[in-house]
Amino acid sequence: MISYETSQNMVSLLPIGSQKSERVFLSAALGRILAEDIVACEDYPLHPTSAMDGYAILHSDLAEFDSLLIMGDNPAGADSIGHVTSGMCIKTFTGSLMPQGADTLIPIENVRVQEGEIVIEKSVPLGFAVRPVGESYRANETLIAKGSSIGFAQIGVLAGINQVMVRVSQRPRVSIIATGSEILDIGEEARHAGQIRSSNSYTLEALVTQLGGEPVQMGIVGDDKNAIMERFEEALASSDIVVSTGGVSVGDYDFVKHIVPRLGAEVIFKGVNIKPGQHVMLAQRGEKFIVSLPGFAYSSTVTCILYVAPLLARMMGCVNPYEPIEATLKVPFAKRSNKSEFTACNLSFEDGRYWVDFEGKKTGSSAILTNLLGDAGLMICGEEDGDLEAGTLVRVVKL
Amino acid sequence: MISYETSQNMVSLLPIGSQKSERVFLSAALGRILAEDIVACEDYPLHPTSAMDGYAILHSDLAEFDSLLIMGDNPAGADSIGHVTSGMCIKTFTGSLMPQGADTLIPIENVRVQEGEIVIEKSVPLGFAVRPVGESYRANETLIAKGSSIGFAQIGVLAGINQVMVRVSQRPRVSIIATGSEILDIGEEARHAGQIRSSNSYTLEALVTQLGGEPVQMGIVGDDKNAIMERFEEALASSDIVVSTGGVSVGDYDFVKHIVPRLGAEVIFKGVNIKPGQHVMLAQRGEKFIVSLPGFAYSSTVTCILYVAPLLARMMGCVNPYEPIEATLKVPFAKRSNKSEFTACNLSFEDGRYWVDFEGKKTGSSAILTNLLGDAGLMICGEEDGDLEAGTLVRVVKL
Repeated sequence: MISYETSQNMVSLLPIGSQKSERVFLSAALGRILAEDIVACEDYPLHPTSAMDGYAILHSDLAEFDSLLIMGDNPAGADSIGHVTSGMCIKTFTGSLMPQGADTLIPIENVRVQEGEIVIEKSVPLGFAVRPVGESYRANETLIAKGSSIGFAQIGVLAGINQVMVRVSQRPRVSIIATGSEILDIGEEARHAGQIRSSNSYTLEALVTQLGGEPVQMGIVGDDKNAIMERFEEALASSDIVVSTGGVSVGDYDFVKHIVPRLGAEVIFKGVNIKPGQHVMLAQRGEKFIVSLPGFAYSSTVTCILYVAPLLARMMGCVNPYEPIEATLKVPFAKRSNKSEFTACNLSFEDGRYWVDFEGKKTGSSAILTNLLGDAGLMICGEEDGDLEAGTLVRVVKL
Repeated sequence: MISYETSQNMVSLLPIGSQKSERVFLSAALGRILAEDIVACEDYPLHPTSAMDGYAILHSDLAEFDSLLIMGDNPAGADSIGHVTSGMCIKTFTGSLMPQGADTLIPIENVRVQEGEIVIEKSVPLGFAVRPVGESYRANETLIAKGSSIGFAQIGVLAGINQVMVRVSQRPRVSIIATGSEILDIGEEARHAGQIRSSNSYTLEALVTQLGGEPVQMGIVGDDKNAIMERFEEALASSDIVVSTGGVSVGDYDFVKHIVPRLGAEVIFKGVNIKPGQHVMLAQRGEKFIVSLPGFAYSSTVTCILYVAPLLARMMGCVNPYEPIEATLKVPFAKRSNKSEFTACNLSFEDGRYWVDFEGKKTGSSAILTNLLGDAGLMICGEEDGDLEAGTLVRVVKL
């Protein structure tokens, strides 16, 4: 079995083909990954603009005159902006272009209006409350880099440059296949006690959605070689990644591990020295990937985070949101194996640091999905690590 | 003007009426807020279940026999699970129910199969690899608390208990009105230089969506009292919160601040000692709220985060995702006013802590939305604070 670190290197080096992009309306761009640099095509603002409500003046007049004649007003959005000459001013509002000739805005609060004139009560420096040309950005400046996730600020900036259509990374299609004759689908009535309610398919669908992929539910297939083979072929034909659960262990009915190589896929690795999920398998056929995860709920979720998340991030050209961060252990931790362990923990943020503890987390098999509820993380304890003392700095995947 | 702290207290004390919930399919529940406690109705697993591939045995036999007769196998999902008696074993796979009588699973790796018998090469403790009844949870245990955000783990746990429909908080409808005669909508052709491309409506729509609200675009309305009044009435009739931008400052065309009280709304506050956004106004009419934000892009975005986010969180009964966290200043910070300042910063995570710096951030007016791009935060510098030294622990809203 290869080490966790080796498996991650292999994922980071996989040939993933060219990135696929598409143009979407701005309204559909939230949460997507930008597939092009966004470059300003002109300065913003393009003209000097008032940043307050007040009077546009020539700054040199402040030394010469006590009062200035009001020549009219210049509401925001007006077509004609007027012209200020010495001894004069034009009332100008937030967001209005500055009248020609004026270089400074004296705020309403700094003057007294008297018989068509303003009396200056408090001076301001040259250029006060004037947004200069290019205050926000200059023409040809890269505003948002390719690979950025599009959040509210990106949406606002794109709207501000009138970008109705945006080029984003296509969402890789991820087919999800659950294998196992014991699996009972949601909503289906149980026939006997040996059936186990499906959760993997739905956990993985949600995870794939949150990671920016487009999940395709292929449903449950029992422990039947031909049926599994057909379902995988169907999935490969219609998606970029096939994620399966179950059938990779050492049991007599674990057919997935035998079938994947027979699909003409090259096995990149089979078995990683991790806990949970040691039987995880990664294969490639052309530009498509097969990630076969173990069947237990906790194992399949963790291995999806460890292997599908970085693969999706690479395909979309963005950062993997599940990169580990540093946190401090609040309590001692007893290592259970000589593998890299990914242990469900509580992750809290106090006194400027993340803290790890295990209060309320259950120990037992790799089936305990409830351990991932709440403000949870996956604490990483390396192959070479032993027991850890309270206060140790550890790496944690924040969920 | 009231202080920032007072304004936040006022928001936290607003009478918001009863929480509204709805039932949605599990497939639509991702990202929603749970409106009921999810309580287990039975133990899980309900029967002792095998956690590995191996042979189900009586542990007491390990001391008595060197080999055990294989009585058949028990694949996962089988209806009949068999019965193990002394001297016998049944081959049992991951996810299978344990046969009756058996109390321990001896893994495949620990035995040698020989003439229909297993020869035990390595013993295991009592109960090994058996998931006991209730390993994951017990009947009547609260699995997920009301108010939790539904992520992938919650989806998996809900699927596992066969919860097809889930009660979630309704998404409050948030109407967005942009006011200002200078505002040019996205896609619209400019007629003259005094027009400014709309970004606020789209920034706020994205923000409201990310906060779990349901945005309703009411469009742009010029600086015309009657038109503004009508648009507000229409918005109030069809939404829970009306968010407007512009028209709250001291200019002659700032009509929003005069109109809101004339809508029969009670003004909760008008003006907060913050920078940016000091003219922000909050009003209530019945169970509906009006949040009137300033018109500049940076101001409206920041004040939406400061006032709309906690209001939405209260209406949905969840945690405000924009609660400040602690970070360390990397560089000195010069305070610019005697207000509570919310300054756009870079927020990085290194050596187990969040760090604040201002590299690449532009200073100037409150119009610079691009300062919120990238891994940005809003550093809070309190009313009473002065300049801050590098190394100071500060509060930051992580965006």
